[in-house]
Amino acid sequence: MSTPLENALDFAHTHASRFVDQLGEFVSIPSVSTDPERFGEVRRAGEWVLEALQKLGMKNIQLFPPDTHPIIYAEYLEAGPDAPTALIYGHYDVQPAEPLDKWHSDPFSPTIRGENMIGRGASDMKGQVAGTLFALESILKSGGSLPINFKFMIEGEEEIGSKHLPAFIANHRDLLAADFCINPDTGMLSPIQPTIVYALRGLAYFELRIYGPKQDLHSGIYGGVIHNPAQVLAELIAGMHDANGKVTLPGFYDKVRALDDEERAELARLPLTEDTLKTRTGVSHLWGEPAFTPVERLGARPTLEVNGLYSGFTGAGAKTVLPAYAMAKISTRLVPDQESTEIKGQMEAYLNAHAPATVRWELEEMSIPSNASISDRNSRWVQAMMQAQETVWGVRPIFRREGGSVPVVTALQSLLGLGSINIGVGLPDDNQHGPDEKLHLPSYHKLIDSLIHFFYALG
Amino acid sequence: MSTPLENALDFAHTHASRFVDQLGEFVSIPSVSTDPERFGEVRRAGEWVLEALQKLGMKNIQLFPPDTHPIIYAEYLEAGPDAPTALIYGHYDVQPAEPLDKWHSDPFSPTIRGENMIGRGASDMKGQVAGTLFALESILKSGGSLPINFKFMIEGEEEIGSKHLPAFIANHRDLLAADFCINPDTGMLSPIQPTIVYALRGLAYFELRIYGPKQDLHSGIYGGVIHNPAQVLAELIAGMHDANGKVTLPGFYDKVRALDDEERAELARLPLTEDTLKTRTGVSHLWGEPAFTPVERLGARPTLEVNGLYSGFTGAGAKTVLPAYAMAKISTRLVPDQESTEIKGQMEAYLNAHAPATVRWELEEMSIPSNASISDRNSRWVQAMMQAQETVWGVRPIFRREGGSVPVVTALQSLLGLGSINIGVGLPDDNQHGPDEKLHLPSYHKLIDSLIHFFYALG
Repeated sequence: MSTPLENALDFAHTHASRFVDQLGEFVSIPSVSTDPERFGEVRRAGEWVLEALQKLGMKNIQLFPPDTHPIIYAEYLEAGPDAPTALIYGHYDVQPAEPLDKWHSDPFSPTIRGENMIGRGASDMKGQVAGTLFALESILKSGGSLPINFKFMIEGEEEIGSKHLPAFIANHRDLLAADFCINPDTGMLSPIQPTIVYALRGLAYFELRIYGPKQDLHSGIYGGVIHNPAQVLAELIAGMHDANGKVTLPGFYDKVRALDDEERAELARLPLTEDTLKTRTGVSHLWGEPAFTPVERLGARPTLEVNGLYSGFTGAGAKTVLPAYAMAKISTRLVPDQESTEIKGQMEAYLNAHAPATVRWELEEMSIPSNASISDRNSRWVQAMMQAQETVWGVRPIFRREGGSVPVVTALQSLLGLGSINIGVGLPDDNQHGPDEKLHLPSYHKLIDSLIHFFYALG
Repeated sequence: MSTPLENALDFAHTHASRFVDQLGEFVSIPSVSTDPERFGEVRRAGEWVLEALQKLGMKNIQLFPPDTHPIIYAEYLEAGPDAPTALIYGHYDVQPAEPLDKWHSDPFSPTIRGENMIGRGASDMKGQVAGTLFALESILKSGGSLPINFKFMIEGEEEIGSKHLPAFIANHRDLLAADFCINPDTGMLSPIQPTIVYALRGLAYFELRIYGPKQDLHSGIYGGVIHNPAQVLAELIAGMHDANGKVTLPGFYDKVRALDDEERAELARLPLTEDTLKTRTGVSHLWGEPAFTPVERLGARPTLEVNGLYSGFTGAGAKTVLPAYAMAKISTRLVPDQESTEIKGQMEAYLNAHAPATVRWELEEMSIPSNASISDRNSRWVQAMMQAQETVWGVRPIFRREGGSVPVVTALQSLLGLGSINIGVGLPDDNQHGPDEKLHLPSYHKLIDSLIHFFYALG
């Protein structure tokens, strides 16, 4: 007679094709959370999750504000008070798909090419939200009952900085009480290398605006007596790195935790070579602080990036304007123990020291700053996840630092004392925020299998 | 009994209000030459000019390519072979009106506010094209005949670099043969100070494109190992000026004609103070080469301006993208004796020396480069214009260098040996390429009067 575990795995394999089709429905909803014209679609993606939770028989389902991007709560406590409780985090919103002309298929008409599903949000992170729900369905529909308790917290604002989530967590400590959090919003190193991310970088994101003359001027009539705001912006940005790629904001590195030799040795074992990075990105030369390896620079060193530039005339042809205004989106990725709320002050100190008197500047923080985080690798839950992944992939997972930022991990840690197991089947070449975002479907199915193993191991 | 001159002036004064209304019709045509969606409107503005020339009884009217932005030729040779022939230059196309939200009325619904007409192209240069036609109408409809011969060359591509004009001029030397050119596309220092512009700056306009990774990347996943193209662009732009505001392109100043003491003294008499420039532009501090006065920097020194910047995400909110691409529009204003065709090579030499190996760059020239020009202040035609202006304004006109660029002046000089009398009633605060462009209507009427005086003085 087969075990409940085997039954659940059988169910998952038998229904693999449906799990792909249903994910396709989810990806086809253009839930771009930054775009006011698509707030209705964001809400619709939330309703897709809500209905899936209802069909699974989850209880006490509630929607929390904002109405346009609701936080969805649901729970299953029938495993009883002695069983552990997992808090499942996810988000149903996605990045903008622009530039659309760089996509080879409609970003919101998911397409299967080879082993991949192509579509905005397939990898970040609708695939992992759907996969988690299908792992539970496989247990419940194959005659089993869930071996542990579950709580769900699925938001619609991750791609715009999870603005309402920290307050929601702070105000619902009892509702969210759990033994650990599963956060499937990180990735794996390769399809054959399961990965548990133990460190994430934090984020502070700004818009810098430079104001010069009161309106756009004719560059012939005024060129030579007016400090051009686009030129000033360029000079300020140029000064934010030194010749060695170090960020020059005053105090930026003061609290950066140094890498010890043991961790550097562990990171050096990651099979992420310079050639791999070059192939994935298409650049001929890497760049960055020469005193650190690329893997160290990606996970353990803070960075400053220009995310966008705008000034003056950007259309086709030639317009001889001396612009009144120039703007840059600038973000920093942070590592332990940088304090994310201090970065704005450092940026302001830099601007006060370097912005010329010929212009006026404004600096606005565009998302709630989040600190970097580092997790406990020795907890019962992490060890169980390691075992489940090894069973499914046949390879012992590796622990790594990741360069991205997951503000919710910081908030759960700081507000509830809850550690997160950061997993996921996103791949480095999934192009999560760019065109032709993809999800590797064999990995998607392995995610479902590994979660079934993991849940039974704890039950 | 009144003279033909007096009759023509009377006609102009009697019909002043209609001359404003008809100009309003002309300005209401959105002939934005850079915008493919408005090529039909550009053509329609050309037809407005064509019909006006027909109604004046001009002969041999012809349209020359391009069809969407035709060059309009017309002539009146009935003054006979002994009378001088004036070539009248003008353009009926206008700059884009964007940013539209900075206008206080629709740019293409011309509005009278106080003494001004507000509308895109009112000052640059539909007002002066219409005013020239109405000067001729005033002579012809008041019973006179034109005292000199006329040829018209009115184009529709001035705001996009007069792309077809040099070849047209080169191929129609006999058709265009004249004694002098009147080019009313420059401006005056103030409404009470008529001005003859004896020097114009040249122009070379570029688009610089920086290519980094093969597609937009996630700034968390790749930040720290990829040289950000927006950062590289900022660094390259920042390096194009030194700390004294001098342009650093190799060889840029090699051919710049030095100002002699006499000319510096003359320029110093222009009533264009630092305070005036600050008030007009709204800046708190001027900028530029400290070794030259603002007037010298505007007219007699070359400059480099950033006209536009674009990279990555520029919408509302925060998108954590590491852009694949960054672009700047960069133009240089040139003075005698810089060779405009050499600037691209200087820009390339700069980029070859300073662009890092981490990116690929492209430089495209966006308009036909034009040299600066200096006119003969002692010709019969210029002296007659000086007298006509003094009669109408009651003030002796001043000669000045102007910062803008009029490629046609260069082309007529170099291809036909034809000098241009650069006049016009554009004012420094007309905001010609910005929002709320205006035309000072009392000056518009004085332009008509002064041309009537001028034509009779030569006849």
